[in-house]
Amino acid sequence: MTAFAIGVDLGGTNLRIAAVDTGGRILEKISTGTEVARRDRVIDEMCSAIANLTSKHGAGGKLLGIGVGVPGIIDLKTGMLRESPNLPGWQDYPVHEEIERRLGTRVVLENDANVAALGEKWLGAAAAVDDMCMLTLGTGVGGGLILHGRIWHGMLGMAGELGHINVHAEGPACGCGSRGCLEQYASAQALKRMAGEVVAGGKAPALARAMNDGQEFDAKVVYQLAMQGDSAAQQVFRRFGTALGIAVAGLINIFNLPMYVIGGGVSSAWEAFAPALLETVKGYSYIYRVTEPADTSKVAAGDAATNYTQITRSQLGSDAGLIGAARLPMIEKAAGF
Amino acid sequence: MTAFAIGVDLGGTNLRIAAVDTGGRILEKISTGTEVARRDRVIDEMCSAIANLTSKHGAGGKLLGIGVGVPGIIDLKTGMLRESPNLPGWQDYPVHEEIERRLGTRVVLENDANVAALGEKWLGAAAAVDDMCMLTLGTGVGGGLILHGRIWHGMLGMAGELGHINVHAEGPACGCGSRGCLEQYASAQALKRMAGEVVAGGKAPALARAMNDGQEFDAKVVYQLAMQGDSAAQQVFRRFGTALGIAVAGLINIFNLPMYVIGGGVSSAWEAFAPALLETVKGYSYIYRVTEPADTSKVAAGDAATNYTQITRSQLGSDAGLIGAARLPMIEKAAGF
Repeated sequence: MTAFAIGVDLGGTNLRIAAVDTGGRILEKISTGTEVARRDRVIDEMCSAIANLTSKHGAGGKLLGIGVGVPGIIDLKTGMLRESPNLPGWQDYPVHEEIERRLGTRVVLENDANVAALGEKWLGAAAAVDDMCMLTLGTGVGGGLILHGRIWHGMLGMAGELGHINVHAEGPACGCGSRGCLEQYASAQALKRMAGEVVAGGKAPALARAMNDGQEFDAKVVYQLAMQGDSAAQQVFRRFGTALGIAVAGLINIFNLPMYVIGGGVSSAWEAFAPALLETVKGYSYIYRVTEPADTSKVAAGDAATNYTQITRSQLGSDAGLIGAARLPMIEKAAGF
Repeated sequence: MTAFAIGVDLGGTNLRIAAVDTGGRILEKISTGTEVARRDRVIDEMCSAIANLTSKHGAGGKLLGIGVGVPGIIDLKTGMLRESPNLPGWQDYPVHEEIERRLGTRVVLENDANVAALGEKWLGAAAAVDDMCMLTLGTGVGGGLILHGRIWHGMLGMAGELGHINVHAEGPACGCGSRGCLEQYASAQALKRMAGEVVAGGKAPALARAMNDGQEFDAKVVYQLAMQGDSAAQQVFRRFGTALGIAVAGLINIFNLPMYVIGGGVSSAWEAFAPALLETVKGYSYIYRVTEPADTSKVAAGDAATNYTQITRSQLGSDAGLIGAARLPMIEKAAGF
């Protein structure tokens, strides 16, 4: 009999649900294009998909529980979504209580970036370390911290808001009420804004053409132009990578962790921003300079994992959140909660 | 029979040593004005003072061990001082090995700000919480993190370099090789530099007079002028408090801790920089805004300690490091190391 859990990834644009066994194998995955803004509809669909997967795989296995990753700041003491700019209509909504009530079973709720960190720690880039930090670059920028193998929640579950680390005190206003947050430089939204800024400066003909050709202009277009050698698009990604580098350098100076994983949809533009990211981290962190992996190929794997600072891409890609969400009820059980 | 430990605070300007019992009472305290740059002399004096205190209090009590707080980045795997701008001549010196060899007993070495955090956690401002962050404002800016009641070391013991969190990407060059670090705005050195900058701007007559009157011009003079209402000196402290606020807001967004303690010698200028500090934290951290202590007088103490974000002054003042250093061998024993 296979023990399994249900993971739910309530993304900014769609809802994905999977049954995952304790070995990390995805037994079945369901994706719906439901607009997450339609809150009650989303919860209906989520609950019926969960019921569906449970009855299907429940015959041959034991359901360990349900884990849900949610984009927003969750107050763990109350189970309320406190701040969720990408889920309009969900703010101050008792999402935890509501899902548990409908399913009649215990649900573990968690911030989506924390869940992605958990996925990478379990089966991805950070499988060899106990401590890691994850940054998810998507519509916005999320963060997750795993310390001594567990998610670091802080006193109310609001920890890990790494997208709101300040990189420019006088920078653009952010949805969180601050300004110059990392999210204003290293997200899909920021890429579009920064591209618009260089176009307005009049020195980015290719970007201007792409923006005005009637097609939807998104982060991918900026990436493609940068990879084709367009200097204006490259300049946008340099700003992106530099801001990300300042934030990661700060995290290295604060935590001295062996691994920092960059994930989320926009991390697929790695080649375009990684040079500026690594150069900036090197410039802004003494600790990185003395722990930079020189030639780890000559060092044993375990030693490499705890003597060097590694900055690397997500390995699980878009499944990190789904796999991490399914992991939630497994580790909560293991820890005896 | 009283069990006690010896704590050593190897400051940037002098050396202090104390015998402290397990209840936190200072049995005896020795201060020497030894220039710490004279490394071998400092180690001689330290070892003879320790031997002196041990023989004196050893008759009536049991020596639990010796803890030493050192200003610099320590590589815990090798016991080497990796970076110590305020201890010239100590870099890459096997300080741990040398002290243990001379005393013939086990010594626990720790970064000085980590040790101050431990002191405040044990007997000071953070006694009621399990998790806290300490910033020590002195010649430079140090940092210490206590998570789940223990110092957070990171993989090599280099964690907590909070003075090197970036607050202005294009700011003044820092001794660590980066630029615009918190230390360049919120330390005694920075106060002098920033005062010099406003004097050079020609609009700070009182600061200019103080600087040119032949007396030594230091951070205290800027503080006194600010408290007397001098607007140029107040502007310097506003820059100081704003930079500190950006760093603390970032730490709140990252950790969601119940308490951030500001200590070190320059924290005695609290009245001059606290308004800008708190205003900036409020502006730059959503998490602070939703967890700001409104009227905690009406809340039970334990509840207040874990539901609100408190930013507060050190309670132990200059003894935090001494008391925390003595605490080191006590908790290492308790944890069974």
